[in-house]
Amino acid sequence: MSALDTSSTGVHTSLSPKAVRDAVWPVMREQASALEPTLARICSYHLGFADEHGDPSSAPSGKLTRSALMTAAAAGVGLRPQDVRCQAAALELLHNSTLIHDDIIDGDELRRGRPAAWKVFGIGPAILAGDALQALGLRMVVDDPGPGRAEVLSVFAEALALVLAGQARELTVRLGPGTGVAEYDRIVTEKTSALLQCALVTPALRAGSPQRVLDALRGAGRHLGLAFQILNDVEDIWGDPSVTGKPVRSDLLRRNPSLPVLAALSADQPAAERLRRLWHADGTTAAHLQEMADLVTESGGRHTAEQLSRGHLDSALDYLGRAELSPAASAELTALFDRIVHRTP
Amino acid sequence: MSALDTSSTGVHTSLSPKAVRDAVWPVMREQASALEPTLARICSYHLGFADEHGDPSSAPSGKLTRSALMTAAAAGVGLRPQDVRCQAAALELLHNSTLIHDDIIDGDELRRGRPAAWKVFGIGPAILAGDALQALGLRMVVDDPGPGRAEVLSVFAEALALVLAGQARELTVRLGPGTGVAEYDRIVTEKTSALLQCALVTPALRAGSPQRVLDALRGAGRHLGLAFQILNDVEDIWGDPSVTGKPVRSDLLRRNPSLPVLAALSADQPAAERLRRLWHADGTTAAHLQEMADLVTESGGRHTAEQLSRGHLDSALDYLGRAELSPAASAELTALFDRIVHRTP
Repeated sequence: MSALDTSSTGVHTSLSPKAVRDAVWPVMREQASALEPTLARICSYHLGFADEHGDPSSAPSGKLTRSALMTAAAAGVGLRPQDVRCQAAALELLHNSTLIHDDIIDGDELRRGRPAAWKVFGIGPAILAGDALQALGLRMVVDDPGPGRAEVLSVFAEALALVLAGQARELTVRLGPGTGVAEYDRIVTEKTSALLQCALVTPALRAGSPQRVLDALRGAGRHLGLAFQILNDVEDIWGDPSVTGKPVRSDLLRRNPSLPVLAALSADQPAAERLRRLWHADGTTAAHLQEMADLVTESGGRHTAEQLSRGHLDSALDYLGRAELSPAASAELTALFDRIVHRTP
Repeated sequence: MSALDTSSTGVHTSLSPKAVRDAVWPVMREQASALEPTLARICSYHLGFADEHGDPSSAPSGKLTRSALMTAAAAGVGLRPQDVRCQAAALELLHNSTLIHDDIIDGDELRRGRPAAWKVFGIGPAILAGDALQALGLRMVVDDPGPGRAEVLSVFAEALALVLAGQARELTVRLGPGTGVAEYDRIVTEKTSALLQCALVTPALRAGSPQRVLDALRGAGRHLGLAFQILNDVEDIWGDPSVTGKPVRSDLLRRNPSLPVLAALSADQPAAERLRRLWHADGTTAAHLQEMADLVTESGGRHTAEQLSRGHLDSALDYLGRAELSPAASAELTALFDRIVHRTP
């Protein structure tokens, strides 16, 4: 019997973050706990189920953004949360596999306010833990039966490949001579949008939605990723570290070409020229970073970034409106898009 | 139309290593080259297609053991090499993804006589390159149509999960209080046998072979992995580094509990007692390692390991005999098993 009951098009909306968590969390926990003991311990720590000794913990564990999107999109095509629960959990695990490795690659010592997995368990074990979550996430989709399995799997595998390509491209750009806004768009579409698109498209694939719906959902995910990432870049410079969970101005510190900086550097103004000199110099003190931040504002980089983010959010909602979802689910996704971009609970 | 022509049960045997390479290599090369440029460069270097600058190279590139097994097993169930070419290339890429990460985890600076990928490109990029090969290998199997796709994919995903579990277990054991032969068997079955089993079973899944054939091939792969790994352990201590491609006695140096050592440590002899003391002491000079090697021999560890390896090879061939393959393919796999275990070209 099919796991999907497309005739049950009842009220699926108004899924609270808690409801999503209650549906997806136990699957993530069960799957991560069943890994080889050392891998289970590292993954459970990273996911916030456990402290570094393996004891139960209620540490921050991420917002389950991708699960929330998938669950809401499922309601929009007449599916129940449990029809995509396994895929939602798998997507969260894939996402977390990239975070574990990303922290090693970037040398980030903090993740969600706690020491990163590699700081606690060492680089080697953390590499394996990320590998294991990656393999587990794909395996869960491989082994879950139900309609659209082949198509869903293809979308998952493609999304993961895109995230890795985007991360590599970002690393190359950061180490290289610089980048432009087009390259920025490409990187973000790969590293940020790909998993959001996967979240939105998966329920439609399981429900057998037509191509125009899939295209609309893909468009929504692409622009949602850009809107989110650009505002995220703004918050890296001017946000409250207790909200972003990251050290303040890490993008400036690392000369990571974030959108406000790219926009500022391309401005034809004296402030942009001063910013260019500082950007290519070695300064990493708080005073240097403050001066850079001020020059980004003065060159119009902050304003441009905020406008661009708003534009992408509008585009995302525009695509969403064309996805022929139920009105209630559309309304819920609209609110969710806004919460994701503005990082409100 | 099916990609498989099971009616063509002509002469598929006597596949030279060159024939396997000619079939599988171009697929690996094409797929790795199509990755994001930085990832393509690292993977092409690691795979021996290119030097560190991206220029063509004919560096050593591994023996394609898993492809050779898969191709020979395909002939045994009436398939042509091209019927499993994509899967064979995918399996090699998965295997290589684990090697790239393994070199980082173990701090191994050499791979096939050249600097390891992480030494050339840095740890961060090498982590991403391993991730990308892992994702690519699975994606190739996801996207290749043909009979048995779901079953093959499930076997691939399981095999990868087992390899990672085995690597993690090995790391835990190495860092922990020690291990026994049962734990050794489990680790090797996971980290070494799993991909060999995957190679042998995949053609049978595509050909729709019955369960008893699958079970026999799994048994053959399990024991082949053990026979290979145990003799590999012997060669780590007494082999010629120019043949093994590894620094001599790295297992002793790292106190990696290899089978000759485990067998020696469990012997009830004065030499075993002396070995135990050295094993738990800090000595890492060539003289220390030589003394340990001599004590392993004196305690009977080398003899036991060589006997065990032979026993596992016999078991592997016994299982192979029950796999109902064509006689010509059986003969070829018999010769191949022997070459794999004894590392002869």
